[in-house]
Amino acid sequence: MPFRWSPREHLSLGAYLIKWLCIVTPTSIAIGSSCALFLWLLDRATNLRFQNPWLLFLLPPAGAAISLLYSRIGNGAEGGNNLLMDAIHGSENGDSGIVVPRRMAPLILVATIISHLFGGSVGREGTAVQMGGSIAAAIGRWFRLNLGDFRILLMAGIAAGFGAVFGTPLTGAVFAMEVLAVGRMNYDALIPCLAAAIIGDQACLAWGLHHSRYSVAAVAPEIVGPLTLKVILAAIAFGLASVLFAELIHGISHIFKRTVSRPWLRPVLGGLLVIALTYLLGTRDYLGLGVSSPDPQAVTIISCFSANGATPWSWWWKLLFTVITLGSGFKGGEVTPLFFIGAALGNALALLMNAPVELFAALGFVAVFAGASNTPLACTLMGIELFGASCSLYFAIACFLSYLCSGHSGIYLSQRIGTPKP
Amino acid sequence: MPFRWSPREHLSLGAYLIKWLCIVTPTSIAIGSSCALFLWLLDRATNLRFQNPWLLFLLPPAGAAISLLYSRIGNGAEGGNNLLMDAIHGSENGDSGIVVPRRMAPLILVATIISHLFGGSVGREGTAVQMGGSIAAAIGRWFRLNLGDFRILLMAGIAAGFGAVFGTPLTGAVFAMEVLAVGRMNYDALIPCLAAAIIGDQACLAWGLHHSRYSVAAVAPEIVGPLTLKVILAAIAFGLASVLFAELIHGISHIFKRTVSRPWLRPVLGGLLVIALTYLLGTRDYLGLGVSSPDPQAVTIISCFSANGATPWSWWWKLLFTVITLGSGFKGGEVTPLFFIGAALGNALALLMNAPVELFAALGFVAVFAGASNTPLACTLMGIELFGASCSLYFAIACFLSYLCSGHSGIYLSQRIGTPKP
Repeated sequence: MPFRWSPREHLSLGAYLIKWLCIVTPTSIAIGSSCALFLWLLDRATNLRFQNPWLLFLLPPAGAAISLLYSRIGNGAEGGNNLLMDAIHGSENGDSGIVVPRRMAPLILVATIISHLFGGSVGREGTAVQMGGSIAAAIGRWFRLNLGDFRILLMAGIAAGFGAVFGTPLTGAVFAMEVLAVGRMNYDALIPCLAAAIIGDQACLAWGLHHSRYSVAAVAPEIVGPLTLKVILAAIAFGLASVLFAELIHGISHIFKRTVSRPWLRPVLGGLLVIALTYLLGTRDYLGLGVSSPDPQAVTIISCFSANGATPWSWWWKLLFTVITLGSGFKGGEVTPLFFIGAALGNALALLMNAPVELFAALGFVAVFAGASNTPLACTLMGIELFGASCSLYFAIACFLSYLCSGHSGIYLSQRIGTPKP
Repeated sequence: MPFRWSPREHLSLGAYLIKWLCIVTPTSIAIGSSCALFLWLLDRATNLRFQNPWLLFLLPPAGAAISLLYSRIGNGAEGGNNLLMDAIHGSENGDSGIVVPRRMAPLILVATIISHLFGGSVGREGTAVQMGGSIAAAIGRWFRLNLGDFRILLMAGIAAGFGAVFGTPLTGAVFAMEVLAVGRMNYDALIPCLAAAIIGDQACLAWGLHHSRYSVAAVAPEIVGPLTLKVILAAIAFGLASVLFAELIHGISHIFKRTVSRPWLRPVLGGLLVIALTYLLGTRDYLGLGVSSPDPQAVTIISCFSANGATPWSWWWKLLFTVITLGSGFKGGEVTPLFFIGAALGNALALLMNAPVELFAALGFVAVFAGASNTPLACTLMGIELFGASCSLYFAIACFLSYLCSGHSGIYLSQRIGTPKP
């Protein structure tokens, strides 16, 4: 009989599905809830800083406190996102030696909130991803998963954290699979990652959290014509900005480590630099998360979506504040600052090239991140999830080209090279 | 200096970009224009059949003609999509022995139009993909590309054909990368595939072609709740339907080959079976492409998007008509019939589970294809490109689960296994 159908194969697929739903559901509820707590605390910390501008002067000692916290009780948690990736790659090769400590979750939560409270220019994704990975690792040990399943659960933890913190579950699922290696994606964690991202996002929303909404007026998809050429040029600029960001953050971190031998002194100096830059520029727009501001004239991610919502160099200042803050040892993510840098650069380029500001801000928002993290498909999906499908081709052009132009630079040093870029 | 930046790397990336735009642009214009010609001829053939119902009785001799055409002057073109995949895999391994003949393009065009004119239940994607691959191979030989570049151009040709024939360029680009291996995607053809799919689609549109438009009312994305459970159940059914389709088509083809020694006799028998089934069922709804019909009461892909637009077993009849037509040797694609089968099954399941008909028809439309071709991401993107982003999570759930549930079945026998399913 040439008709092949194996009921046993389908029973085993059903068992696989049920098993992973059972593992992933509690894990993702815990991760999504942690993300809700994080976003709530972040909101409180940001508002507290808006109301008490003097808190900025405590940024240097806050940095020292974070450094001491990690050196005293870090137990390896300092490795952050890279440690997670190393653990995932290690598990793939049968090496169970890389331990993701349970304390990574509370440590990164506290350290990120401290960074934000005192005005450090950091983001959210690193925190969410590390909380996700650390909680997933703890639950994986509790379930006594074998190494292969443990690896998949770590990936699902990343997906849940990413999906929950930005409210973009599909992006979170694809990001967790795409970020591990440049230019190659494996599908063995497809279903656990999707389930984790959806459940994590729902758990976060169930706590009453709301994500920032951005709106982009639908642009007629006139793919033939000068607009596409402008998108291509902007995409190349986004890719180069991502190289600048990734290389500067590694370079500054390297310089701090080589020139300042005491780890706690590095963020003190970084904090002082941030204060000096703030007073030199006469603006506090580049401190903290940058999504919103009590000052209606301020440059924020949201203001970048309107004409005159950013200066021609806003992208560069946000980039500089962020690489100094993160490079000197503060904690938090890179992604929200990358959204800011991209949206501000898109705003400036739109003005320069007489292109639609909203569209170009949205393109920069996702494309600089695509280049810096080498995740072009996840970022195209993020553009679609945040801004709608009407401009999906432009998102793809921007993210794919930025990915190409970022070369082998990237913010994640533990990312492997799956397929080299040309 | 810890800041790494190599202008040479970026110059070489720029040269790569320009080189591929120069190769891909003429190739994709040729492919997109061929697809326009194909779609125009297809439309004429379908209308001619609607006006002259007696043409169905010529289906058996038409099948014999197709078979003789391929056996006399096919020169290997019979291999179709699988030959293309073999050539791509061969190039990857340094084997240039598998030749994609130039005549594959005109042969598949003529054979598909003949199949449609006389009422065979076949699709379009195989034709577009084979025209794309054959034209790309011819141009690649003309440019004297090395084996690595030749492989990328073949993939770009698939992307251009797929993107143009369905008007979904982003899907076309991802499909060409995703279809080669189950569970693994490489990004080395990312930019050529995207450029080819966009240019191919634009070239096709420039000839004045219009694609069918489907509309799905935005469903509130209430991911928590009974609707999601229904989507999960439907997705499993879609995956099983894709297994049934893939295994039946291979099985029937196998039976025909074993029991009928003369190749030309197989489509004659297949054509007679189709005629018999048509009169047995008393309907012509399952002949041809099935996108539209002059009879407002007919079951078509479009009617499946409304309540009572399909019978509970429409999906099965379309499946049977298609596997007999294609399994006996007629030419054309599998994908449009898979859209029909999925949409009709979605329609029936929506009725059964009291779920929104439009949404479930759209989910089936993409998810049965996702299972049969093992391309879950491309099909999720197709859902977004055709029906909008409001239900993107449901598309992802349906396509990813259908992919899982299709196991190691699939319509493309030359698809490799990149990462085995659990």
